[in-house]
Amino acid sequence: MGGPRIVSLSEFQLIDNLLKPLSAGAPGAFSLSDDTAVLPDPADGMCHVVTKDVVSVGRHMRADDPPDTMARKALRVNLSDLASMGAEPVGFFMALCLSPGTSDQFLRSFVDGLALDVEAFSMPLMGGDIIKIDGPFTVSVTAVGSVEKESVLRRSGASSGEALWVSGTIGDGMFGLRVLDGQFSGLSEDLRESLIERYRMPDPRLLLGQSLCGLATACIDISDGLVADVGHLCAASQVGCRIAIEDVPLSEGASQVVIADPELMMEVLTKGDDYELAWTIPPELESRLSAIASAAGVPATRIGTLTEDREVCVIKGDGDKLTIAQGGYRHI
Amino acid sequence: MGGPRIVSLSEFQLIDNLLKPLSAGAPGAFSLSDDTAVLPDPADGMCHVVTKDVVSVGRHMRADDPPDTMARKALRVNLSDLASMGAEPVGFFMALCLSPGTSDQFLRSFVDGLALDVEAFSMPLMGGDIIKIDGPFTVSVTAVGSVEKESVLRRSGASSGEALWVSGTIGDGMFGLRVLDGQFSGLSEDLRESLIERYRMPDPRLLLGQSLCGLATACIDISDGLVADVGHLCAASQVGCRIAIEDVPLSEGASQVVIADPELMMEVLTKGDDYELAWTIPPELESRLSAIASAAGVPATRIGTLTEDREVCVIKGDGDKLTIAQGGYRHI
Repeated sequence: MGGPRIVSLSEFQLIDNLLKPLSAGAPGAFSLSDDTAVLPDPADGMCHVVTKDVVSVGRHMRADDPPDTMARKALRVNLSDLASMGAEPVGFFMALCLSPGTSDQFLRSFVDGLALDVEAFSMPLMGGDIIKIDGPFTVSVTAVGSVEKESVLRRSGASSGEALWVSGTIGDGMFGLRVLDGQFSGLSEDLRESLIERYRMPDPRLLLGQSLCGLATACIDISDGLVADVGHLCAASQVGCRIAIEDVPLSEGASQVVIADPELMMEVLTKGDDYELAWTIPPELESRLSAIASAAGVPATRIGTLTEDREVCVIKGDGDKLTIAQGGYRHI
Repeated sequence: MGGPRIVSLSEFQLIDNLLKPLSAGAPGAFSLSDDTAVLPDPADGMCHVVTKDVVSVGRHMRADDPPDTMARKALRVNLSDLASMGAEPVGFFMALCLSPGTSDQFLRSFVDGLALDVEAFSMPLMGGDIIKIDGPFTVSVTAVGSVEKESVLRRSGASSGEALWVSGTIGDGMFGLRVLDGQFSGLSEDLRESLIERYRMPDPRLLLGQSLCGLATACIDISDGLVADVGHLCAASQVGCRIAIEDVPLSEGASQVVIADPELMMEVLTKGDDYELAWTIPPELESRLSAIASAAGVPATRIGTLTEDREVCVIKGDGDKLTIAQGGYRHI
């Protein structure tokens, strides 16, 4: 970032000039004039769901990530949680912790990115807070969604014999971060860019999640790593799972990387930042997934089967179990 | 804090062992097993209000504050916002940003403090997130409240000729911080302790706020400083205000400090951390405030009159206007 490295926008200017327009779609946000917002009532038969994820530079974002994608990632990791419940976005609240070095230019670009997703996801900003900390730029988002009461997708609800499916491709975000760290220089520029974009700007599977309501028996978004999050779903559902390693879907970039170094497949299975959905479904309903995934614009792949025993394991091509040392990414 | 300075509790242990019990009152929190919680429906005629305030060590809390009061302050500054709307608490979401030095012992004490207020305010923990940052211990709380739709207190709604009232006493939190910095050694230990407690653990005026619904024309909580926050109320209401400096209520400790150094009265008027309510009310209704304040267990004091011009000013004993350089505390 060029320009001065000192915040000269005051909190009130930042709110009035940059953030207030993002609240236009939410009458209950009172143009951000009050400290508190009034949530709209849920429509008949619907309920509100709420999720809160915090991201920071050094953990989920690199200091050299563009500020506009930082904003969108902060929002989208929360939207991914809403997607896993089958909800559609209603609005969000945001607390910004500015670093001593956060510049006006940075903030303007951050808000530009936010504005794009406020529009793309029809998700107005409804309130929040801004402070300065002697630490990394940190964004806490609380997202509110709306979903049919009877159809809320949960982690619990899966039964043995059902199939485990995932959306999109796994491992791209993690590989994208490594591309930024200078790895995988053998990949074409297009593939490197595509992995970086997956790291910086995950695509919350909202339409897919909504379509899975009433169909999937359990659902989770993959943020801590495929094996860890399938483990969470299985623990909540009191089942186990056998994942076929050969069926885990990889993008072209991830495929090339893993072919060049097969040991990296372990990272695909255990590292986070995917923000894809994993869900379970009775075998007799699987035939309906192809049309649903196609309408949602994202591939869906069957990767495993739920078992009565409580073990979550990954089966190699030779039929043996893969030994997994680390269950998933931990933020602390 | 004694004990090891390394976090050995994993995120999952922290949630399972320490935080899960705090969600007991909220069925929609699913014992914190999912990433997202289902909000209960608002009761007939009620609506949900949401506020989000973030606090951090070095800004709102001192590194040597007890962890249990840090937790309670993080929650209570949000409850103070709910109080200003006339709402009662429903539940809260919390994102914890742990410092590299945050110990298990610190976290246990933090959660102990949280548990006290979860019980005291019937406010279950409904979800959140935990990360580690290379920065100060930071807590972002999103609080949900419930209030009658027709009676939501707002900053707008005040008219000229109405009276301005405040709850409790002003300036204590700011003086408490200075006591911790070693100032005011002439005060008795009791008075020093009482100011410190006001800094570390504000008392959200929830009952008072609820009682003001339908009576007050506008309301705000004083967090940025009396003059700044009355200014916000007046701006939203498109009025001005004349505050009588002699009527601004001071605690015994604050009185002694200001008598010893009258220039400190400026700080009382302009520094933050009060978390008292300021509200406006037509003169014909003022007689009802004494019973309401008494039932809510907090003094209420008339400190000013709203004017047609848009100026917010403080009138000295001699009738002259006080010159105020700094409008209020800014967190950035």
